[in-house]
Amino acid sequence: MFDYKLLSALAAVVEQAGFERAAQVLGLSQSAVSQRIKLLEARVGQPVLVRGSKPEPTEIGRRLLNHVQQVRLLERDLSGQVPALDEGTAPERLRIALNADSLATWWAQAVTAFCAEHRVLLELVVEDQEVGLKRMRGGDVAACVCATDKPVAGARSLALGAMRYRALASPDFIARHFSAGVTAQSLAQAPAIVFGPDDFLQHRYLASQGAEGAFAYHLCPSSEGFIRLTEAGMGWGLVPELQVRELLASGALQELQPERPIDVPLYWHHWRNGGELLGELTRHLQRATAEVLVQP
Amino acid sequence: MFDYKLLSALAAVVEQAGFERAAQVLGLSQSAVSQRIKLLEARVGQPVLVRGSKPEPTEIGRRLLNHVQQVRLLERDLSGQVPALDEGTAPERLRIALNADSLATWWAQAVTAFCAEHRVLLELVVEDQEVGLKRMRGGDVAACVCATDKPVAGARSLALGAMRYRALASPDFIARHFSAGVTAQSLAQAPAIVFGPDDFLQHRYLASQGAEGAFAYHLCPSSEGFIRLTEAGMGWGLVPELQVRELLASGALQELQPERPIDVPLYWHHWRNGGELLGELTRHLQRATAEVLVQP
Repeated sequence: MFDYKLLSALAAVVEQAGFERAAQVLGLSQSAVSQRIKLLEARVGQPVLVRGSKPEPTEIGRRLLNHVQQVRLLERDLSGQVPALDEGTAPERLRIALNADSLATWWAQAVTAFCAEHRVLLELVVEDQEVGLKRMRGGDVAACVCATDKPVAGARSLALGAMRYRALASPDFIARHFSAGVTAQSLAQAPAIVFGPDDFLQHRYLASQGAEGAFAYHLCPSSEGFIRLTEAGMGWGLVPELQVRELLASGALQELQPERPIDVPLYWHHWRNGGELLGELTRHLQRATAEVLVQP
Repeated sequence: MFDYKLLSALAAVVEQAGFERAAQVLGLSQSAVSQRIKLLEARVGQPVLVRGSKPEPTEIGRRLLNHVQQVRLLERDLSGQVPALDEGTAPERLRIALNADSLATWWAQAVTAFCAEHRVLLELVVEDQEVGLKRMRGGDVAACVCATDKPVAGARSLALGAMRYRALASPDFIARHFSAGVTAQSLAQAPAIVFGPDDFLQHRYLASQGAEGAFAYHLCPSSEGFIRLTEAGMGWGLVPELQVRELLASGALQELQPERPIDVPLYWHHWRNGGELLGELTRHLQRATAEVLVQP
């Protein structure tokens, strides 16, 4: 079997972002931690860490960390049945990738009770909806929320429901750019806001109305920043309904085409061998999202 | 001189995230764009693009793009003085790195009028405060907002003022974890929320009160997500005052130690040879941030 003393040292250095803090957590001297990492590297025959102001795992290091995370989840299941084995009091860490808009809206409400009850610490990774799965495939996260339904090898996917997006802008932006009405043409000529290079929601929205060409847009890879730019009148954009109820009610933002929402379906991808905790979180999310996401 | 037909093709492919859209924008066939890129690669002797579902610039490609951006800014200055040269009607793109909390709070209000007046499209890149400068150094952005004052070679930095952070939690989290009062010890024992591996604000906050050891925390790399998790009662965290005025007023979030705010100074870094537009934006930001950021 692997030497888990060495793997735990690697996990601690990465999780604690440094040798000093890792040593504190492990109750070892810094040089002992350092030696364990070196020994691990001698065994695998290549570096597991890129040393820097903050140590980062190498490709192989990341795979080892992924393995440690899986083993911890399995141990957790076992220690529930065999309490005597349960020596640690440290809460479990779950590394999960999700799209920024989920994190900015329904995610916290959906998971807080679960995390408090099960003593889980979340390590969230924000990925655009189309690319979160890459993290699953790379073994970098235990689960992911994204817009693709097809699971990667070794994983399952579960439909959670959809987020509804609406095209919005500020009243003064509307007055400046849409005085003659909102058409595909006037939309394509007014500056838009796009989340990032992987976000084609605005492109799809325009294309669905026959505006296939290029259009001018700001790039703003932050959900909150996106709203702030829209509110300030920098451009129009597709925004999750969940995020702007108050701004719509107050009139700070207005809908451009109320009859044309876009629904983006969301799927929960999780390891098939992720252990009981991940299974429970899956069931919990299924219940918690039933109310907040648009169900088919 | 360089062949700017080739460089424009590279810029278009990257900015438009594909050959097809780039061809549309340039008014060329897709194969003509493709040929220009190949010719460019033949000249520089190595690939400038990583071909994939979305073409990404290589290291050398990125440097060329940076050069194109600088040349465009300089051209813009000149065409202001020599209007006959001004053939294009396309708005200028400015690529700027900034920390997520600035983007989530004061940024939009500070720049919208400027961007509308000067017809500037922003390409924003979110970087944690300590690492945005790497992007400047790599020539990947024209300017950056970050917490470090020392400019990189070829750039200037300007103090904008500070963002004030306050330690907050939800009332039920406070009842659960701080019933005996908020001390360094009780803070270190309650789960915190940390923005990302480069965010040491919570660490510094605890250390300043003598709690130097490890503590349990969730990682949540999203400003809005951070607030949502805090509000839902997942943990305590340091949050920009600007972002939570309403949640504090409504009582949804409460201050843990009102007498202990943390001020994070922000600096505007910009190329010295960035042209008149960047110079004007610099002067504009200096005025616009004077009111909204904490001045020394």
